[in-house]
Amino acid sequence: MEQKVLRHVVLFKFNDGTTTDRVKEIEMAFMDLRNKIHIIESIEWGKDVSPEGLSQGFTHCFFVTFSSEENRDAYIPHPDHQAFVSLMESFVEKVLVVDYWACS
Amino acid sequence: MEQKVLRHVVLFKFNDGTTTDRVKEIEMAFMDLRNKIHIIESIEWGKDVSPEGLSQGFTHCFFVTFSSEENRDAYIPHPDHQAFVSLMESFVEKVLVVDYWACS
Repeated sequence: MEQKVLRHVVLFKFNDGTTTDRVKEIEMAFMDLRNKIHIIESIEWGKDVSPEGLSQGFTHCFFVTFSSEENRDAYIPHPDHQAFVSLMESFVEKVLVVDYWACS
Repeated sequence: MEQKVLRHVVLFKFNDGTTTDRVKEIEMAFMDLRNKIHIIESIEWGKDVSPEGLSQGFTHCFFVTFSSEENRDAYIPHPDHQAFVSLMESFVEKVLVVDYWACS
């Protein structure tokens, strides 16, 4: 039986005028969380390239996988995650988060 | 070298009052696209269970994988995809779509 995984989908829209260096720093810091918080199974990310015009301004997607709700619940208040939130929050205009148990 | 994949992330918020049977029909119809449109590599989906309150009303995530932009571009106008859009559009209040090349 396939093991179920919990997906944690995070979309960002950066503030207008955020420098490309700052955006890159935040991208790297998000990806570095998997090295710091070992209950993360995996992270992938990318910049929006949809031609459909339905992104509602979001430009970045980070796609995090956990093996359980307990791990997701431990991630949210984790000091390294909270340090990341402090790093990025003044540069991000909008954040959208949905989590789902992957059905296929 | 790992092969790059193009992710197509679709979020739905259904209209208030949409019946659970109708929602289920639309969920199934989306998943059935992989049987009809063979350029889709895979689809997974799930209902939002995030406790963070940042879902902006979106309740469903469908996560579609393509192997190329050409396949994604062929999917959008594909008659079976367009039939799905016709099926769902009067029941969905908001749609958000981002596509990204997966970096890990």
